[in-house]
Amino acid sequence: MLSDTIAAVSTALGEGGIAIIRVSGPEAITQVAPLFRSRVSLTDAPTHTVHYGHIISLGDGEVMEEVLVTVMRGPRSFTTEDVVEISTHGGVISVRRVMDVLLQQDIRLAEPGEFTKRAFLGGRIDLSQAEAVIDLIRSKSDRAFSVALKQVSGSLSERIHALRHTLIETLAHIEVNIDYPEHDVEALTAEFIKDKSTEVMEGINKLLKTANEGKILREGITTAIIGRPNVGKSSLLNALARNNKAIVTDIPGTTRDVIEEYVTINNIPLKLLDTAGIRETMDVVERIGVERSKAAVMDADLILLVLNANEELNEDELALMEQIHGRQCLCIMNKMDLPSKLDREQLLSFFDESSIVPMSVREEEGLDHLEEAISTLFFGGKLESGDLTYVSNVRHIALLKKAYRSLQDAYEAADQFIPIDMIQIDVRLAWEQLGEIIGDTAADSLLDQIFSQFCLGK
Amino acid sequence: MLSDTIAAVSTALGEGGIAIIRVSGPEAITQVAPLFRSRVSLTDAPTHTVHYGHIISLGDGEVMEEVLVTVMRGPRSFTTEDVVEISTHGGVISVRRVMDVLLQQDIRLAEPGEFTKRAFLGGRIDLSQAEAVIDLIRSKSDRAFSVALKQVSGSLSERIHALRHTLIETLAHIEVNIDYPEHDVEALTAEFIKDKSTEVMEGINKLLKTANEGKILREGITTAIIGRPNVGKSSLLNALARNNKAIVTDIPGTTRDVIEEYVTINNIPLKLLDTAGIRETMDVVERIGVERSKAAVMDADLILLVLNANEELNEDELALMEQIHGRQCLCIMNKMDLPSKLDREQLLSFFDESSIVPMSVREEEGLDHLEEAISTLFFGGKLESGDLTYVSNVRHIALLKKAYRSLQDAYEAADQFIPIDMIQIDVRLAWEQLGEIIGDTAADSLLDQIFSQFCLGK
Repeated sequence: MLSDTIAAVSTALGEGGIAIIRVSGPEAITQVAPLFRSRVSLTDAPTHTVHYGHIISLGDGEVMEEVLVTVMRGPRSFTTEDVVEISTHGGVISVRRVMDVLLQQDIRLAEPGEFTKRAFLGGRIDLSQAEAVIDLIRSKSDRAFSVALKQVSGSLSERIHALRHTLIETLAHIEVNIDYPEHDVEALTAEFIKDKSTEVMEGINKLLKTANEGKILREGITTAIIGRPNVGKSSLLNALARNNKAIVTDIPGTTRDVIEEYVTINNIPLKLLDTAGIRETMDVVERIGVERSKAAVMDADLILLVLNANEELNEDELALMEQIHGRQCLCIMNKMDLPSKLDREQLLSFFDESSIVPMSVREEEGLDHLEEAISTLFFGGKLESGDLTYVSNVRHIALLKKAYRSLQDAYEAADQFIPIDMIQIDVRLAWEQLGEIIGDTAADSLLDQIFSQFCLGK
Repeated sequence: MLSDTIAAVSTALGEGGIAIIRVSGPEAITQVAPLFRSRVSLTDAPTHTVHYGHIISLGDGEVMEEVLVTVMRGPRSFTTEDVVEISTHGGVISVRRVMDVLLQQDIRLAEPGEFTKRAFLGGRIDLSQAEAVIDLIRSKSDRAFSVALKQVSGSLSERIHALRHTLIETLAHIEVNIDYPEHDVEALTAEFIKDKSTEVMEGINKLLKTANEGKILREGITTAIIGRPNVGKSSLLNALARNNKAIVTDIPGTTRDVIEEYVTINNIPLKLLDTAGIRETMDVVERIGVERSKAAVMDADLILLVLNANEELNEDELALMEQIHGRQCLCIMNKMDLPSKLDREQLLSFFDESSIVPMSVREEEGLDHLEEAISTLFFGGKLESGDLTYVSNVRHIALLKKAYRSLQDAYEAADQFIPIDMIQIDVRLAWEQLGEIIGDTAADSLLDQIFSQFCLGK
């Protein structure tokens, strides 16, 4: 099927030195060529070459912009189609002028994610790889990026392919034996199905076990810093931000109200509540009973309770400790550079030994302990191991669970000597469900839904 | 002089499908080559070619990012040096990972504008062209962009060169005759200097005449919409925004408080006061006496007073008209689709015929009249003519004025038969002052100041 030619700005909007407009489709080169005034003709340009020139308006020949144009002929391109990338001076007007003349050609504005969708439809990447592309862009930490990059390169796909391969072998085995309904063969086949189902279920389980960590890596640990006034909450926040290259991201499409701040403590991304939220939360002692503060604490994956080691616990703090009991919480004994007046035994009635982190935020001491404690809490301390294959996408998790249940059904049916052709249906279902992860059996509506989450120009 | 190798992110920060990191310098290719894992070696890559591969960390060989790398060998590059452009997946982490490994090489972070500065130092563009590059990026309207693009291509430079050519000829003429102080020759030379000075002063004047329009094109007409409640101020604002593709620009480095909205009425950029300001201003009648409203009106280049044609003028409006008397103002008679109850004679005592614009914002009628009226007010109605060479840069304007004064001195001195070698100094000064515009005689400190206004990565 011939597709049409699409164009979009692929760089972030705003003031920058360069902006890139990407054009993709069978007619990309021939449609852009007449708009490009240069010493060379784009139609003759070899693939993967860059050319200096001007984009002009076809009507009056007005020079719209001074550009560099890159030609990449399919299938050796991001989309597998012919791709033209136009590099303009940055800025809003520049980009609009070039887009305007492009859209006067037989080129339409790309939908969000449409370039990546074409890479998928063109067979260059599968669906799980395509989904990882947007994870790359949105990743909030180095490690999340590494995980997504690994998935782009096909690490998850390989696992899924291996599991499906086992299932298709099983199906072939069933197919061969289905015509020989002798008791012996049937019993052997049932055993075979049980073995293979177990094998694949184990594989699925292994992947699902990474889901929690994967989700944290991808989305960050929602963290609330609480404590009574003047214990060092804002100092802690600032120390985290300063020492860990705080990445403040404006996510387009979200309003100012829900913007969050991210800090990364050595590969562990913390999603701190937005400044307003933090202020709310930080004042939680003063505001116990204020619904919004409560909600902020309730939403958090991790609560950092800051105490002043130099002062005894007061009533408010004890109340607070009761309130957050049972939550993922670290107790930060701040101001350890001063003599400690905290009753350690009393603290141990609320917190594990490992959850108590002595620090001196002012002296910048103990941040490494905090890091270690968070790592232990969320990753069992083993974050640094593993091969970077994590399942973090909710769609993938749901499909893995479905496939697992289908195989459980197959196993139980085999165990109860239900006719093989009935069991076959469950195995095939599991095979299809796993296939949906990599887009082998994905419906158009699903594709639309997935790619619409992308940003424009990707 | 060998320069060092610099790198910076050249695209706008934020979420996008692509980000570009630009590396420039004599060692750009050899420094990036070991970080780039690909089928080809960058050092062997022909100029203006693009290569797919991965950026790796030199230490542990970790894959940092999947990239396209473009090689452009000097002098055929933006900076005239060897340039490597690395196209990464967009997003904050991606860019940081690649920058991190680059900066571990013998590459340093570029200063704002440093790429353009190198293009200037390399002789590819002169200073006025370099300055227009940042105007391109920051331009707020199509026409401002066209003007900047023309200047990038050297339109202003040509004018300056022509004027300087005349001056250098004059200087040569003086030089030849200075050794023949016979009265005849001296008198003839004085006449010659007067002629040539006049010629160049006329040329300078011609350029200076474009300054006001140039400034407006570049910065927009600061506009306040005022009037009493319910006359259609917000409808007008919305109509302007809707029909004229409002460009809302976030200018990095400025706070939210001073963000302005730009609308372009057929090539004339209006800088509407920021929403808060507009609200203030729109309520000006209710708030006469409120200092902020007054300040908003005072700051405006243009005041749009909206009246309801269907109602008679009231006291407040008369007071308002007194207040804004003598300012650049258009009187918009809105709701002309309803029977008019305004006393036209009364209006004409405040406004010129041409400043009264009948409209029906609701019916979207009369926007073309408004456009025409603004055009007449600020450009004498002749906006569409001209060859797009405008002087808008305050530095250029100041230097043109200085050169003009120097030539005036030369003229007067010649008129008073002051010795030729004294006059020569003034002519040479004018030649140098014009030269400073194109950077021919610019000091290092000036260059630093100019390029520091650029964005990073340009």
